[in-house]
Amino acid sequence: MKRNIYLKKKSLDEAKGIASKLADLIRLPAEAIPVIQSLGRVTAEPLFAKISSPPFHCAAMDGIAVQAESTYGATEDSPKLLIVGKEAWFVNTGHPIPLGTNAVIMIEDVHQIDLKKVEIREAAHPWQHVRAIGEDIVATEMVFPENHQITSYDIGALLASGYREICVKKKPRVLILPTGSELIEPGEVNLSGPLSKIIESNSYVLNNLVFEDGGEILKHPIVKDDFEKIREALLSKYEEVDLILIIAGSSAGSEDYTRSIIEESGEVYVHGISMMPGKPTLLGRFKNRPIIGIPGYPVSAILAYEELVKPLIYQILRLVKPERLKIKVFPTRKIPSKLGTEEFLRVKVGKVGENFYASPLPRGSGMITSLTKADGIIRISSLSEGLDEHQAVELELLRPLEEVLNTIVIVGSHDLTLDLLANSLGKYYPPLFLSSHSVGSFGGILALKSGICHIAGLHLLDPATGQYNIPYIQAHLKGISIRVINLVHREQGLIVQRKNPKSLGGLTDLLRDDITFINRQKGSGTRILLDHELQNLSINSGQIKGYEKEEFTHMAVASMVASGVVDVGLGILSAAKAMNLDFILITRERYDLVIPSAYFEDEKIQKVIDVIRSKEFKEEVLRMGGYDVSRTGEELL
Amino acid sequence: MKRNIYLKKKSLDEAKGIASKLADLIRLPAEAIPVIQSLGRVTAEPLFAKISSPPFHCAAMDGIAVQAESTYGATEDSPKLLIVGKEAWFVNTGHPIPLGTNAVIMIEDVHQIDLKKVEIREAAHPWQHVRAIGEDIVATEMVFPENHQITSYDIGALLASGYREICVKKKPRVLILPTGSELIEPGEVNLSGPLSKIIESNSYVLNNLVFEDGGEILKHPIVKDDFEKIREALLSKYEEVDLILIIAGSSAGSEDYTRSIIEESGEVYVHGISMMPGKPTLLGRFKNRPIIGIPGYPVSAILAYEELVKPLIYQILRLVKPERLKIKVFPTRKIPSKLGTEEFLRVKVGKVGENFYASPLPRGSGMITSLTKADGIIRISSLSEGLDEHQAVELELLRPLEEVLNTIVIVGSHDLTLDLLANSLGKYYPPLFLSSHSVGSFGGILALKSGICHIAGLHLLDPATGQYNIPYIQAHLKGISIRVINLVHREQGLIVQRKNPKSLGGLTDLLRDDITFINRQKGSGTRILLDHELQNLSINSGQIKGYEKEEFTHMAVASMVASGVVDVGLGILSAAKAMNLDFILITRERYDLVIPSAYFEDEKIQKVIDVIRSKEFKEEVLRMGGYDVSRTGEELL
Repeated sequence: MKRNIYLKKKSLDEAKGIASKLADLIRLPAEAIPVIQSLGRVTAEPLFAKISSPPFHCAAMDGIAVQAESTYGATEDSPKLLIVGKEAWFVNTGHPIPLGTNAVIMIEDVHQIDLKKVEIREAAHPWQHVRAIGEDIVATEMVFPENHQITSYDIGALLASGYREICVKKKPRVLILPTGSELIEPGEVNLSGPLSKIIESNSYVLNNLVFEDGGEILKHPIVKDDFEKIREALLSKYEEVDLILIIAGSSAGSEDYTRSIIEESGEVYVHGISMMPGKPTLLGRFKNRPIIGIPGYPVSAILAYEELVKPLIYQILRLVKPERLKIKVFPTRKIPSKLGTEEFLRVKVGKVGENFYASPLPRGSGMITSLTKADGIIRISSLSEGLDEHQAVELELLRPLEEVLNTIVIVGSHDLTLDLLANSLGKYYPPLFLSSHSVGSFGGILALKSGICHIAGLHLLDPATGQYNIPYIQAHLKGISIRVINLVHREQGLIVQRKNPKSLGGLTDLLRDDITFINRQKGSGTRILLDHELQNLSINSGQIKGYEKEEFTHMAVASMVASGVVDVGLGILSAAKAMNLDFILITRERYDLVIPSAYFEDEKIQKVIDVIRSKEFKEEVLRMGGYDVSRTGEELL
Repeated sequence: MKRNIYLKKKSLDEAKGIASKLADLIRLPAEAIPVIQSLGRVTAEPLFAKISSPPFHCAAMDGIAVQAESTYGATEDSPKLLIVGKEAWFVNTGHPIPLGTNAVIMIEDVHQIDLKKVEIREAAHPWQHVRAIGEDIVATEMVFPENHQITSYDIGALLASGYREICVKKKPRVLILPTGSELIEPGEVNLSGPLSKIIESNSYVLNNLVFEDGGEILKHPIVKDDFEKIREALLSKYEEVDLILIIAGSSAGSEDYTRSIIEESGEVYVHGISMMPGKPTLLGRFKNRPIIGIPGYPVSAILAYEELVKPLIYQILRLVKPERLKIKVFPTRKIPSKLGTEEFLRVKVGKVGENFYASPLPRGSGMITSLTKADGIIRISSLSEGLDEHQAVELELLRPLEEVLNTIVIVGSHDLTLDLLANSLGKYYPPLFLSSHSVGSFGGILALKSGICHIAGLHLLDPATGQYNIPYIQAHLKGISIRVINLVHREQGLIVQRKNPKSLGGLTDLLRDDITFINRQKGSGTRILLDHELQNLSINSGQIKGYEKEEFTHMAVASMVASGVVDVGLGILSAAKAMNLDFILITRERYDLVIPSAYFEDEKIQKVIDVIRSKEFKEEVLRMGGYDVSRTGEELL
């Protein structure tokens, strides 16, 4: 069994230098295209005006054209008569002024005596209200240099300069070749049965990224992990393109053929880059075309593209790659990172008080949602061992800053109604966004304490008093003025497989030998509830099989049950319903939104409360099942 | 003759408020489109995952799938044998792991004994190198809310969630109706003869702006200034669109029918906005469609669009309008502005030393090049009387900041070879830009003195010594260390009409009664040269007809001659050649680039000098005619 060993890993900077040299392999020919379709294209030559703009002396106002000298002496007291067609000519804005005239008198200042005569009460000075030929553009002047990217505005200047067609660089053509026997085309997925293949999405993401960067795409269908087939695909297509992206097959696995195929027909310059995600990226030459081996995990694929391919495309087009807006943020917690590897940490960002805070999203390279949910990326240098929560770091924004400034940050326990709330907020108050982070109820208390959220979502039962949330607020948030709004009451219970095949009846059944349980993380309200209930029943949690395995959300618990990996977990009815599972009610609990008074009167927060109190929101919540909205929106503290 | 009087002018903010209410007239229906074509579209409903991603427990590495518990006890010293197909199954990344397994051991750690047996030397822990079902996306969870704009990344998440099609808002349809009898379609222009109409370009600029903002365009051909024809065009098309832009016909001229046509079939809410450019903008309702009367001057048209239509389109789509990046800049000079009017001043920007400096471009609303050349826009509030050169103001960047940071600012006299230099610099050193401002040679000296440019371009003859530039530098730039590089020597002479119909022979002919002259502005090297030569010949400039009328560039002078407005001007041969005019040599002068030593060693400036010294640049200069490059690139101080 032949295995690939990575070439000595290159740093990202070294790899970028090599990618930049690969750009020299590409020469884009020029092509003539209509000006009106040239938006975003790049000029292949300097463009000199073919005509002047305006192309003649023209009236800048509606009025009469005159020879200024013939109006001298006209005043309020001694108006002057001009003969139409001999000394004065009616003109409208944009029309040429007759030969021999050099001024326009505004129609408002012209008194028409009869069809043949007009009277003026003020002299005109030469060139008044006249746009002189070439005032804007002089024929033969350079309107745009070579390597200029055409904007919407530019199209106006080009048309005014007499251009109908211009010479631009052809778009770089990019072959996108997805490989992998585990893949299935999105169009071939049959959702009615269980899937046994992964939906191929990378090529479509890359396709759109290349399009956004001004390239043209030749997308190849999926090729199986088969040396001959991949080689054949490359050989049959490489001549049609300027650049090749081959997806997957470049890690160190047994069926990773990309490297040997390239070595056979070209050269591999880089195989393995000390970046995360994105390590298995490959840079080489296939025949005389640059080829980039893009890793198969979606986040790796995107980062390999953005760090290595995107700069190459801009270089070929001779354009400056636009940089993302950078802001300073504080991490919400300490984040260790591997020395020697440049990490691209995806984070959610919110401005709370004076500072921007960044909460890390999952770091796995298979988590596309870590990018789609991200507001920005923090690059952790290969020389750093990680981030410290007290040290501001630079963040590259993935969204417009205005969106981040209009984002309300809610941290704490997870509830499905938060998604409804986010959706309604964006629907009824479109510039507003709700960003929620599931760190458990107790995490929410700590976030309030550190001042890194606007709202915490809690359902913390105090076993001593049987009260929800308030005792915890009083104990842990002393000195912070707090308001509490009820979001919902909800049903917690055992989530079990459909039709309850193992006939679970209650918490005591968790002790059964044939039952595997999945737990929630420590500090979550659900975990506290479970431990409280187990104690009431004098159940020793050590005897529950699976008690030590934790998930972070209700949906993750439900998903574990649905897949048959476990038999049961504790969670909310709506999660069970969403996954089409059965549910055994254990208790009814209160879920509140806890808001520092400092933010409570803020217009944005008030809009959140407006939505919570709306009939539409309550109805949507009820439709999910397992919720009671009788106290929703009520102020409890 | 019926004339329009503006309704009481509205402030821009009032007008924006009214435009925002017009958005309520529009409801965009939803449509289903393929996910892979959804880039930039806006969701019409929340999207819940149809399947989980990964859709099954799958291998995260190439290797063997095992039940972790069966590997317990394996160590370096006591390896464990596993039977392939019974206790261990070969799996590749992304493939499902067999039912009953819960861990993957990397291929690198597996020792294959024979076809049926493998050996491991370390136990696996449960779920190692396994991507659990739903790890990224759990079926039924909300992947994107309503009103979410799809990015390239999002397409990956949607495909992975089992979507092939999604429901998005239809693009807003916009009717663009250009009006004006003075206009000609770009496709109908015949460049071989003289033009008597203005090329219609606004509709194409608006077309592209609407496209960039996510709208769909219905472009109407030009309609003449004819009440019936304009009404007919609107009546026949309005039902097909969501929004109407009617270009021109909304100022106060006699043939401006837009307002009365709208009043007949709807209502005019705003006519006249206290903004500059953009005053004659109109907001109304035609039947039940919002209609915006866009002014006919190109800069006014663009600003009316960007200030009033663009926000409306974003509002309809329920998206946050992206804001331009803002930086603080110092104006290079005092700029008065009209109280009560919000002015949009277009400027070029460069970073010289520590500060950004903004030089105003022409302020006329007919100057499309004032936008295409602009790096940014300064909004001068209606409450302000203008800008002060010592007061930093906010600028909205029209280009990426990196481009501005890579821009070398050259101020001073105008020469056509500066365009060649800019072009070559962008061609050979693509991230570099040259931005040149024609303020005359003496203006260049002052700019060096104020520290607002990197380079000044001078051709200042010292009449006392006959020397160029150096005496001026010594007199006016005391205490600043300066380097001087020769750009070219060039021929200055009389630019006259083709075939010299009035038989001019030299400067003394300027005194002739039948000759009209056009002058250059005070402080320009050409003006100093002229005055010097006139003095030598004892000619009284007061006797030259047209001596008092000034233009700012050689090309503007040549253009005045070419159009027949004047007979002669003083300028460089290349300008005469460019306009196909005749030329009578007066003298040969030196044109130098003057660079503070503080910038001289800067890499960017060195690249400028590299280009100047290149064979390619010198050859291009020679090709223009009228230049001597024998000392080009030589250091003179």
